[in-house]
Amino acid sequence: MLDTPLGAGPEFDRIRRMAERWRERAHGLGDDCAFIEAGGEILAVSVDLSVEGVHFRRDWLQPAEIGYRAAAAALSDLAAVAAEPMALLLSLGMPAKDGDEVVHALADGVGDAAADAGALVVGGDLSRADQLLVDCCVIGRAPAPVRRRGAKPGDRLVVTGVLGGPLAALLAWRAGQEPRPEARTRFARPSPRHAAARFLASRRARAMIDVSDGLVGDLGHLLAASEVGASLWVDRIPVLPVAETAATRLGEPAWRFAARSGEEYELLAALPSDVTDEDLSRAPVPVTVIGVIEETPGLRATSSGQAVTLPTGYDHFGPA
Amino acid sequence: MLDTPLGAGPEFDRIRRMAERWRERAHGLGDDCAFIEAGGEILAVSVDLSVEGVHFRRDWLQPAEIGYRAAAAALSDLAAVAAEPMALLLSLGMPAKDGDEVVHALADGVGDAAADAGALVVGGDLSRADQLLVDCCVIGRAPAPVRRRGAKPGDRLVVTGVLGGPLAALLAWRAGQEPRPEARTRFARPSPRHAAARFLASRRARAMIDVSDGLVGDLGHLLAASEVGASLWVDRIPVLPVAETAATRLGEPAWRFAARSGEEYELLAALPSDVTDEDLSRAPVPVTVIGVIEETPGLRATSSGQAVTLPTGYDHFGPA
Repeated sequence: MLDTPLGAGPEFDRIRRMAERWRERAHGLGDDCAFIEAGGEILAVSVDLSVEGVHFRRDWLQPAEIGYRAAAAALSDLAAVAAEPMALLLSLGMPAKDGDEVVHALADGVGDAAADAGALVVGGDLSRADQLLVDCCVIGRAPAPVRRRGAKPGDRLVVTGVLGGPLAALLAWRAGQEPRPEARTRFARPSPRHAAARFLASRRARAMIDVSDGLVGDLGHLLAASEVGASLWVDRIPVLPVAETAATRLGEPAWRFAARSGEEYELLAALPSDVTDEDLSRAPVPVTVIGVIEETPGLRATSSGQAVTLPTGYDHFGPA
Repeated sequence: MLDTPLGAGPEFDRIRRMAERWRERAHGLGDDCAFIEAGGEILAVSVDLSVEGVHFRRDWLQPAEIGYRAAAAALSDLAAVAAEPMALLLSLGMPAKDGDEVVHALADGVGDAAADAGALVVGGDLSRADQLLVDCCVIGRAPAPVRRRGAKPGDRLVVTGVLGGPLAALLAWRAGQEPRPEARTRFARPSPRHAAARFLASRRARAMIDVSDGLVGDLGHLLAASEVGASLWVDRIPVLPVAETAATRLGEPAWRFAARSGEEYELLAALPSDVTDEDLSRAPVPVTVIGVIEETPGLRATSSGQAVTLPTGYDHFGPA
């Protein structure tokens, strides 16, 4: 919805200006999904474009992985609003030099990600293009959508899974090395958190977002939409062991490395304060409390009680 | 649906092979839209990718026209199944050199096409890309969808509007000339035939498709899906006057020129034989009877009773 303030970042500014152009025609641009109503049901819809050289490189990923990852990124938007995946539409752009085996492998990757999320691939389009590009439009049922706005002071701030894998993989590739398998898998075959989303929704999650721009960036969006602030206890941020190793090598705190890692597709949510640790231990993936929502706007990060400076998020529309 | 045979053409072969890869995951690839059910309602969904240098050129069209045309192409898929447009999602890829004015103009064009069709732009994604690309995913209500299959021997074969404008525009540009305004408008700002689709559905249209690959190509898809043949009375094909002029200049019969013009976004439908000419005269745009559905497979074209050879359709995945 246009009345939801968006977080900072040049890409968001651009989308916001696009949204302003559409004026009252535009809906839901402040959430991971837009919502439409059909037959009394609420449907969540989202689209996610992956472009060669911007979101992936062919010397890093196999075509099937490119397809899987692109579809997972779109499906994660459904998880972020606690929607049940139904359908996926795929647009594929391919250089003329690519043969059918590339189309097939990409289609298999997209199909696998859709099947893993319980969605059907219902349609597609195919065009020649100078770069490989994969655009996935996803549709899900959202009987009780969780939005970015809605976090209240006192809410427990939680994140699913362990962070840092995608950045560790990215840095290894950029240094001309093959990433460690645990890091590579987190980048090449991310798992949208549909089961965790169902769990968090059942625990009355008040606001939710998926971690695509990095923990700090996406937390900023959630706080801006909810018109609240937060304290972030950085030592609690769950970090993948191979990411800790990579951070140590850079002389960077592990939490800082994990907090600037994007395309994690984990979920960040604000839960009512009465949801206990014991209850959270029943989640289908680890759910970690990493802070608390506060009335005062802004994000205050502390390590062992000391204020620390946060990394800024990243923006794929800026220089690579 | 995968049980619907697709017509010929290398792009369709590729999509068919993609569909086979998705096996039972894939639905509706034989129609202009796929169909999903939500809350007891049938929704039609489709996606249409437009790529610079493949579907449009910037020296031919203004950014707002590129946006309008890309959205109209997607919305026309909804008209082709007699669905009422609800929502549009837009993915935009843009070279880094392009400024905000290009984003704004494209967004305005897409927004105008959506508004003209009664749809809301509900979401979008934006990425850097080497070429300009516009991918539109559309969702509509289809309480009584009209499919490609369903044409019966004896049905009247009809087409909306007048054909040939887009090809006349294309040939003028390719010859380094500015197209005549009537031809240019048909290419730059096509009108998806939603009102005509409603009319044809109300007259019990048994099969329908939009003319995107050219009359001959799309009629082939409809006949293949319906497992029937047809006689096409080529002298009845409605031709735009400027297209007649262009055909004369090429020494080509006007009907032939019109029959190979693609991206028309007119509708081709099979109507029960009891729908009268008088009734058809009430349509919101001209509806012309151009032939009859027959049991014998294949397409038989006649001019003044003499058999004539048809042009083949075109395929944008082949050489430009």
